[in-house]
Amino acid sequence: MGPIITKNRVEDLKTLLRHRKDEAIFISKLENVRYLTGFTGSNGALLVFTHQDISPIFFTDSRYEEQSAIQLTASNCEDIKVLVSRPNGPKLLEQVSSEALRHDIQTLLIESSDLRVSALEELGTFLATHIDTKSSIGVVESLRRKKDDAELQAIERASEIADQALIRVKGLLREGTSERDFAVELEYQMMKLGADERSFASIVASGPRSSLPHGHPTDRVIAEGDVVIVDFGAIYNGYHSDCTRTFSIGEPTPQVQEVYDLVLSAQLEVISHVRADSSCKSLDEIARDVLRKSGVEHLFIHSLGHGVGLEVHEEPFLSARSETVLSPRYVITVEPGVYLPELFGVRIEDTLVVTKDGSKALTKVDKDWIIS
Amino acid sequence: MGPIITKNRVEDLKTLLRHRKDEAIFISKLENVRYLTGFTGSNGALLVFTHQDISPIFFTDSRYEEQSAIQLTASNCEDIKVLVSRPNGPKLLEQVSSEALRHDIQTLLIESSDLRVSALEELGTFLATHIDTKSSIGVVESLRRKKDDAELQAIERASEIADQALIRVKGLLREGTSERDFAVELEYQMMKLGADERSFASIVASGPRSSLPHGHPTDRVIAEGDVVIVDFGAIYNGYHSDCTRTFSIGEPTPQVQEVYDLVLSAQLEVISHVRADSSCKSLDEIARDVLRKSGVEHLFIHSLGHGVGLEVHEEPFLSARSETVLSPRYVITVEPGVYLPELFGVRIEDTLVVTKDGSKALTKVDKDWIIS
Repeated sequence: MGPIITKNRVEDLKTLLRHRKDEAIFISKLENVRYLTGFTGSNGALLVFTHQDISPIFFTDSRYEEQSAIQLTASNCEDIKVLVSRPNGPKLLEQVSSEALRHDIQTLLIESSDLRVSALEELGTFLATHIDTKSSIGVVESLRRKKDDAELQAIERASEIADQALIRVKGLLREGTSERDFAVELEYQMMKLGADERSFASIVASGPRSSLPHGHPTDRVIAEGDVVIVDFGAIYNGYHSDCTRTFSIGEPTPQVQEVYDLVLSAQLEVISHVRADSSCKSLDEIARDVLRKSGVEHLFIHSLGHGVGLEVHEEPFLSARSETVLSPRYVITVEPGVYLPELFGVRIEDTLVVTKDGSKALTKVDKDWIIS
Repeated sequence: MGPIITKNRVEDLKTLLRHRKDEAIFISKLENVRYLTGFTGSNGALLVFTHQDISPIFFTDSRYEEQSAIQLTASNCEDIKVLVSRPNGPKLLEQVSSEALRHDIQTLLIESSDLRVSALEELGTFLATHIDTKSSIGVVESLRRKKDDAELQAIERASEIADQALIRVKGLLREGTSERDFAVELEYQMMKLGADERSFASIVASGPRSSLPHGHPTDRVIAEGDVVIVDFGAIYNGYHSDCTRTFSIGEPTPQVQEVYDLVLSAQLEVISHVRADSSCKSLDEIARDVLRKSGVEHLFIHSLGHGVGLEVHEEPFLSARSETVLSPRYVITVEPGVYLPELFGVRIEDTLVVTKDGSKALTKVDKDWIIS
């Protein structure tokens, strides 16, 4: 996997911290560490000071010494100092504290929705009364909303891999295939096509189970007349895709056809309104409005969508409560759904990149939904 | 996946809390919630009071209402009260706080190595000055060390799946196969054989890369003369297996043969000493002692092993610093390794269950290591 970042990201973070009047931040969330440094291992952290003259410091353990050196160099992060904790030396959090204490700061931001209580306690012991810690949420995440070219290319490639994998296994969507077998083959094809990993545990929910929005695959065998929801994605170079298609095995009943058409029209209506300056809240309302006119808005029991990037669910969140306004280069999903308990459900989802005047679909696999 | 628990586990936890003189514990770690209730979803928590007359309370959100009802019933947890948080109602942590406040307790244990700082802050706001929270580590984990029959059967099945998958793909271990392709096929076969998931991202490290203890698969193509380390496992019914085999592609050099024989003899020597009442520390020392006699103890750069269960790495940890003594029904790995930087590495690992007088291997795939 090639590097896809530049050191500008750390500079952007410093600028943000300056605006917030913060002195330093301890970044423990691995996706944020990866975003800023290119490091992909399972143990790494970053200390960033607002002051222009103080270099950021990257922390890892001896297992990742070689890998982190290669990855930080490839990411143009040569100005980041690297400290490696070793089995018989000071622990990582002790090193973080020592580095923070070397500089004249009074308060250190922590990522409170990531850091474990025991880690904060350890940090607090080392920092004693010299530095206070202060909780923060979403600082680096706010930078991650707007994707650069390399990030968009990675999400586009992840989406293509997922599309191609679905095309390869679509023939298995027939009477006699179990949900589980279909999911295993779909994920295998994504891996064969070059995915780092699947984006999340695929949802394959057939028959009455399609009314469960998060139906994990079971041994249930697909039968003629079933509705099948398939929600899946690939990761490429760390970046996710997310796509849902709903299928009818054989001719749909008039009711299924009606619900499918309605969900599709809600999705297309929202997509026609996606553009820079649209508010997330208004898009959610557009979907609900389409469904409300047919009296099924109460069967749309989740929010409209979410951002996609280094995490499959990230900012911005497209819900009735979101105050966020879209900007160019945001990558989002639009995924209305209608679920009739114990009967069937329909969800249609695409991953899109927001542009100045509209949006571009990244997941492109067709919506040819009737398997005859 | 069938249920594999009984309500005795919650009773055991209550007894432990009573011995510790604690009043109640808030369990947020999902593996611990699963251990106690059988719930397998991604959002669930449990509040357990020491007092005999106060029922435990399980918390989840509306996505998991149906699933949790089924799973708790199947686990004989009918006496656990269930509270479901809904989009427009009080949040999960608010519900937890309300339930804690209904009872006359002064202190609530939290799982500090799991709970996020922001969650503790939220809990603290609701509990205000009425109840103090107190950090704890490893309370439920201490109960999880000793496996019951159903747990042992699950780990045994996970181990069989992994063994069979390796046998199926062993023919790909030859010149021309990439590390990545081998890992993809191995994991696919584990899924085809009925694994819930792979136990962890498989390690496939060939040639000089075999000297990296955690070499994730790359596009490097296996060549004649390579040493290849394969470290992999399956999950069955939530329970993990863990196994490592080292292969020589073609005849090994005398040095490789010597190191292989040494690592194998260290592993077998340790296994011959595994039994109830062995100390973890002493087993780690036995392995180091074998390697020390050949002057390569400094090339054994990780600890000897770890417990295996609902997590692939859990208590007890077999390291030089561990004060733990083994008991019957503990499941552990024994995995000495020797790594010659930039040349090659050898690691051999099995998952074993401890018995009164010895141990029984659960991973059984043969150690026929030379691929000719």
